[in-house]
Amino acid sequence: MTRFHFRSTLIPLAGAVLIGTAGVAAADNDDLADYMDMFEPLPAMPPLPADNTMTPEKIELGKMLFFEPRISASGTISCATCHNPALGWADRIDRSVGHDGQVGLRNTPTVLNSGFLEAQFWDGREPDLEGQALGPIEADDEMAMNLDDAIEQLNEFEEYNEHFRAAFPESDGEITGENMAQAMAAFQRTLNTPNSPFDRFLRGDRQAMSDDQVEGMKLFVDSGCVACHNGPALTDSRFYEFDLPGPTDEGRFVVTGDEADRNHFRTPTLRNVAVTYPYFHNGSISDLGEAINLMGEQMLGTEFEDDELEKLVDFMHALTGEMPQITPPALP
Amino acid sequence: MTRFHFRSTLIPLAGAVLIGTAGVAAADNDDLADYMDMFEPLPAMPPLPADNTMTPEKIELGKMLFFEPRISASGTISCATCHNPALGWADRIDRSVGHDGQVGLRNTPTVLNSGFLEAQFWDGREPDLEGQALGPIEADDEMAMNLDDAIEQLNEFEEYNEHFRAAFPESDGEITGENMAQAMAAFQRTLNTPNSPFDRFLRGDRQAMSDDQVEGMKLFVDSGCVACHNGPALTDSRFYEFDLPGPTDEGRFVVTGDEADRNHFRTPTLRNVAVTYPYFHNGSISDLGEAINLMGEQMLGTEFEDDELEKLVDFMHALTGEMPQITPPALP
Repeated sequence: MTRFHFRSTLIPLAGAVLIGTAGVAAADNDDLADYMDMFEPLPAMPPLPADNTMTPEKIELGKMLFFEPRISASGTISCATCHNPALGWADRIDRSVGHDGQVGLRNTPTVLNSGFLEAQFWDGREPDLEGQALGPIEADDEMAMNLDDAIEQLNEFEEYNEHFRAAFPESDGEITGENMAQAMAAFQRTLNTPNSPFDRFLRGDRQAMSDDQVEGMKLFVDSGCVACHNGPALTDSRFYEFDLPGPTDEGRFVVTGDEADRNHFRTPTLRNVAVTYPYFHNGSISDLGEAINLMGEQMLGTEFEDDELEKLVDFMHALTGEMPQITPPALP
Repeated sequence: MTRFHFRSTLIPLAGAVLIGTAGVAAADNDDLADYMDMFEPLPAMPPLPADNTMTPEKIELGKMLFFEPRISASGTISCATCHNPALGWADRIDRSVGHDGQVGLRNTPTVLNSGFLEAQFWDGREPDLEGQALGPIEADDEMAMNLDDAIEQLNEFEEYNEHFRAAFPESDGEITGENMAQAMAAFQRTLNTPNSPFDRFLRGDRQAMSDDQVEGMKLFVDSGCVACHNGPALTDSRFYEFDLPGPTDEGRFVVTGDEADRNHFRTPTLRNVAVTYPYFHNGSISDLGEAINLMGEQMLGTEFEDDELEKLVDFMHALTGEMPQITPPALP
């Protein structure tokens, strides 16, 4: 590795406090606290919006909608089809498969901890989960259903009207796109993965990570990964360009029309990265070590030594938290 | 209704004891016990095969395989896709949708209580769950994956070998079609729905069913439904012919080549019938009352009065048991 001297550059980081030290060299355990200050443990809940109160009724309704395939054109695809609870709430294939077996443009991002992201979708075209929720229902290569038809489907079941009434008491049970989105967003904000070895380590348990994982954490800081992968979800929610094998698309340019955004994609969360392969917006890399190597070369101009790479991979495994234990709802 | 005088005909019924009474007329509560003797509550477990011991390790592995989409050609279809825990462990569409959006010939039967059936598939081509388990993996219009390829997929994950080793200690972790089938069958035998209102009623709780449901139960016996819908799962697992709207196929004839079996299909379980619509082998009828009417007309030569139909529908709702509370596994 070409040491990046990151900790001495004092790049301002959102949500991270840099306690700078001039000399870098091989950091030892005496300054472990400095490294730990670069991070923050995952809070129990993401930030909550002022206008979408999170009641148990709304969360329950959101869970029903998340597992509901009848709001897709074929009646067989739900949010949970691609955001599969058995597969890290993603799908573990390169690019998503949707309506009529169509292969989408991009890899399915996990919904785990998605409430912590400041930009939704790989191109950041929505700022929050409320804005995100209805997109896949209407996308031609995902669930392929017009929103009005989806609402008509739900209205077939009086049980749904009752749930909407309980979740939105002022609506009198009316089903709208807006309250569907609010309910699904409320449910998704419960899908967090606390208490990873990394979180326990940050909270003081020095035995929660192995020595190699601690070394990996230091490398993660020293080599500069933390410049973009920071904050509670280890992402800055900003957009970057790099080369990948396989098909790609114009990325953030599609949203902004700004040439500077062409082929730029959002920094993904590294929370649970070991169980949310394959990687990058086109899912072209399945191996975690290979993904880290590619990032090192292209984003940091660094070639990691084999033993460094191993420690970084070990550290990534420490980011796997406790999975939400969800029992699928009994739909009407 | 043309009263069928079923209870006086003393048709021998497998698993049901007939305490015959000569006079029929309007039965009153005094002979309720006679009606109750026609039925049996759902046992906690179905019959277990002598050669597939049911260990927690095997059940856990079977659950993993049941939720595993990577043993399908697209990597996106698992057993749980059509046998969806959120939809009564079936799919609530007319006919199943499989690989590349292909629509299959038949309606997806629920796996709930399927260990109690003496014939698997609508055409009874397999006698038990071990025989059934691999069929949908290899079917071109379902998961569309060659068994050898499925095994190769599983062998990609050392974690699967460990689970096979734990479930089949003598196999040394080798993955074969036979042990896959045994594990999935063991898991499916846990998917039972005890303690329906009907079961509680049969066990002595006279308040478990409403008066209309009790009347419906009597009608179910008196009109002859119980001739085919008997035993713990309320099916004789035999094969019958009748006319339905919509597409059909040759049914049991495909299995036996016997002309007498042409267009014959297995009697379905009535357990959880209210939550496992649509009905019949082609899923052409969604309304439970309509399904009962059709059966009355074609199988019993009976036209039910409106109030009789309502009571029969009410009784069917009493057959909904407690759904298994399954948390999807965390797959490797």
